Amino acid sequence: MIKTIAWQDNRVVMIDQRKLPREEIYVVCSDYRQVIEAIKAMVIRGAPAIGLAAALGAALGAQGIAARDPGEFRQRFEEICREIGKARPTAINLAWALEGMLAKAESAAGRGVSGIKNLLVREARRLVSQDVAINRALGRAGQEVIRDGDTILTHCNAGALATGGYGTALGVIRAARAAGKKVRVLADETRPFLQGTRLTAWELARDRIPVTLITDSMAGHFMKKGLIDRVIVGADRIAANGDTANKIGTYSVAVLARAHRIPFYVAAPCSTIDPRIKTGKAIPIEERDEKEVTHWAGQCLAPAGIQVLNPAFDVTPASYITGIITERGLLQAPFGRSIREALRGKGEQMEAGRRRREATAKSGKKTK
Amino acid sequence: MIKTIAWQDNRVVMIDQRKLPREEIYVVCSDYRQVIEAIKAMVIRGAPAIGLAAALGAALGAQGIAARDPGEFRQRFEEICREIGKARPTAINLAWALEGMLAKAESAAGRGVSGIKNLLVREARRLVSQDVAINRALGRAGQEVIRDGDTILTHCNAGALATGGYGTALGVIRAARAAGKKVRVLADETRPFLQGTRLTAWELARDRIPVTLITDSMAGHFMKKGLIDRVIVGADRIAANGDTANKIGTYSVAVLARAHRIPFYVAAPCSTIDPRIKTGKAIPIEERDEKEVTHWAGQCLAPAGIQVLNPAFDVTPASYITGIITERGLLQAPFGRSIREALRGKGEQMEAGRRRREATAKSGKKTK
Repeated sequence: MIKTIAWQDNRVVMIDQRKLPREEIYVVCSDYRQVIEAIKAMVIRGAPAIGLAAALGAALGAQGIAARDPGEFRQRFEEICREIGKARPTAINLAWALEGMLAKAESAAGRGVSGIKNLLVREARRLVSQDVAINRALGRAGQEVIRDGDTILTHCNAGALATGGYGTALGVIRAARAAGKKVRVLADETRPFLQGTRLTAWELARDRIPVTLITDSMAGHFMKKGLIDRVIVGADRIAANGDTANKIGTYSVAVLARAHRIPFYVAAPCSTIDPRIKTGKAIPIEERDEKEVTHWAGQCLAPAGIQVLNPAFDVTPASYITGIITERGLLQAPFGRSIREALRGKGEQMEAGRRRREATAKSGKKTK
Repeated sequence: MIKTIAWQDNRVVMIDQRKLPREEIYVVCSDYRQVIEAIKAMVIRGAPAIGLAAALGAALGAQGIAARDPGEFRQRFEEICREIGKARPTAINLAWALEGMLAKAESAAGRGVSGIKNLLVREARRLVSQDVAINRALGRAGQEVIRDGDTILTHCNAGALATGGYGTALGVIRAARAAGKKVRVLADETRPFLQGTRLTAWELARDRIPVTLITDSMAGHFMKKGLIDRVIVGADRIAANGDTANKIGTYSVAVLARAHRIPFYVAAPCSTIDPRIKTGKAIPIEERDEKEVTHWAGQCLAPAGIQVLNPAFDVTPASYITGIITERGLLQAPFGRSIREALRGKGEQMEAGRRRREATAKSGKKTK
């Protein structure tokens, strides 16, 4: 199994996704600031994996806090979490993981600093294995929508490399295969970062799942030719109404799927749902360095000084989505209701925790 | 003005479009086989420019024929034209230009071999200047559909570099600017060959026309945001019913434009229309080397041995096209009729010439 990120000997170790598939190199972070840099530089990417990097980074940051007083420790830990929280703006899993870590620190306030430090490492590691379990559950639920013989189009990488392991969109495909269904994958190369070419093609080929690489611009052509039965993509943030932010180009694929009457699924853990955001319009969309578009391997392909737009994500309105596959089952329209129901229970606890944290953070700011 | 291709000192000279925008290097062909290789390798590309390369290549090939007997000369010239005609399959301009050259050779049968040779060079050079004049006429007709302040999305390069000069889709934009309209261009980078990044961005920046580069996957996102007023693309072959083959990705753009109620125009000279082909289904679509998708600058970005699909073109059904801009005006639905009317006159003469050539070729084969 592919190891995306792990805690090892008091360090955070992650596979360098910028170097795949040519080189399998691991980046070892001994300081939480290196984890932040790794998230920013996309050494690690994919909403769930970013969340795990944040949790492990927070645990790493906690180890380095010199304070012996629990109050001081807590203040410094909050600062570290805030810093990590700014690494990238769109994937909500980043905030979700940090809120979980802060809640965990708070819950253990009585244990003393070293007790809390140990607990935070255990919690971050638990989140990694929990993520794999969630993806397996999500895969089992999602594979129900796959028919034997389907060709599935996916965009970007929502695989093992985007998560703690197994994957979301690719987890559904793995589960369909495990259930004995023959499936083929058409992978969009996913410009500008080429997650499809470099990551999705690599991890599917490794698992001997038939995969064919196409440029993003070919999806419509192959839909028209009847070669695509289903689309499954991941998500970076899902609003309360089901509007879904995902890698730039996802919206185009959704419009094309609709025009060709091809079912379009989003596969994501419930932690990707942001119930505080009502619609996709409120999801912050990261703009990244234009060199991602103009350069390859340090070489500029475009005329010097050319203007470039490089939004890293787009928003697919819920009306284009056939279903959202989560570890709590397949959510369908009306998404407002199905999402609310999925988040009930565990979701409500988490939401209460979030509100508590926000209240604490606010009162903290006021007293400063 | 950008010089795409020219006849110079008994050689065919063309700018190497694989090297742009980093280097302005000219390829000099002293043998028609070098012209064929240049077309295949996309040193020169763009349907009208391929047609001109074919005509100049045929003239070059004619110079090298040793035969003094007009009958022998003609036979060898036909062989050369057939060879050139196989260089690429989709752009009909290639066949159109060669048919014109063959008809010219036939019309001058009485002049003797050296007379025919001279005439063929004059004819090929005439086609180059005629192409620029056609594009200017096409631009004037097309700019009527542009409003002051429009942002126009284009895909691939249908500019000066795709033609003898001035361009088709970019010719319309140049004409709109000349008419005093402020326009901005959003250029799709156009994977896999990056004609948008390397060629469209380069030639528009050179003409100080505001251009912003985006990846192909971003077009839908910016349409949804209301940033695109109009789409104009070129064409490689237009069927009798208006179905249009153009660079892969064009069909996706057309579907997206329709979903966002954005007018979608094709700009092409009448020589791109193939009245012998009834619908787009019969247009041959070239499959190119998968390395165009997997490699950059000799480096493989994908996992070794990955399967790839690389159709170079797709077909946009006429129903997605708001209008076809030609040198004989704007053609609109029903395209079957408007195309027939546009091809009347000159078109009919050309068609009669084609039929004559085909009959001659057939009888030639039979007697061999």
